[in-house]
Amino acid sequence: MLLRTAIGDELRRNRLSQGRTLRDVSKAASVSLGYLSEIERGVKEPSSEMLAAICDSLDLKVSILINSVGQLLTVAEPAANVINLHPVATNRAA
Amino acid sequence: MLLRTAIGDELRRNRLSQGRTLRDVSKAASVSLGYLSEIERGVKEPSSEMLAAICDSLDLKVSILINSVGQLLTVAEPAANVINLHPVATNRAA
Repeated sequence: MLLRTAIGDELRRNRLSQGRTLRDVSKAASVSLGYLSEIERGVKEPSSEMLAAICDSLDLKVSILINSVGQLLTVAEPAANVINLHPVATNRAA
Repeated sequence: MLLRTAIGDELRRNRLSQGRTLRDVSKAASVSLGYLSEIERGVKEPSSEMLAAICDSLDLKVSILINSVGQLLTVAEPAANVINLHPVATNRAA
């Protein structure tokens, strides 16, 4: 999962948990509705300043958003060290 | 502190802790040396893909970097709710 995808997911989750529309938040953050939508969908990278403005309009500290993003990325990362307790047999009876 | 400043600080801290040069990491990540330097100094915003490439060249998971960045932003944030145990007197003897 890319960083901008995780940031977009967390921004949308926070907006929806507040029952707010894209229109409302985009107006409050002085970002166009289409651009905010693209950020939420992970299509566009927000600049750090724009991210701060969106967080501000959501009354959300950037640090809290980024901590959530870190958790989301951790969960989404392929677990390279998972032990396979039930390995599938690789050899078949002839 | 802006997100890109915290990301740059953490990238540089990780590179230096490995005793590696900008030249070495920029080559491994296929990023120009000048651009990597600007990212580390918080001058330029790396795209999510570029960040992934730099992390890869540092053998560092993006999730681990972002968790550190979250901690750095938390520490850097002004503590709005700190209780002032020793308030300075605001009125002076006339």
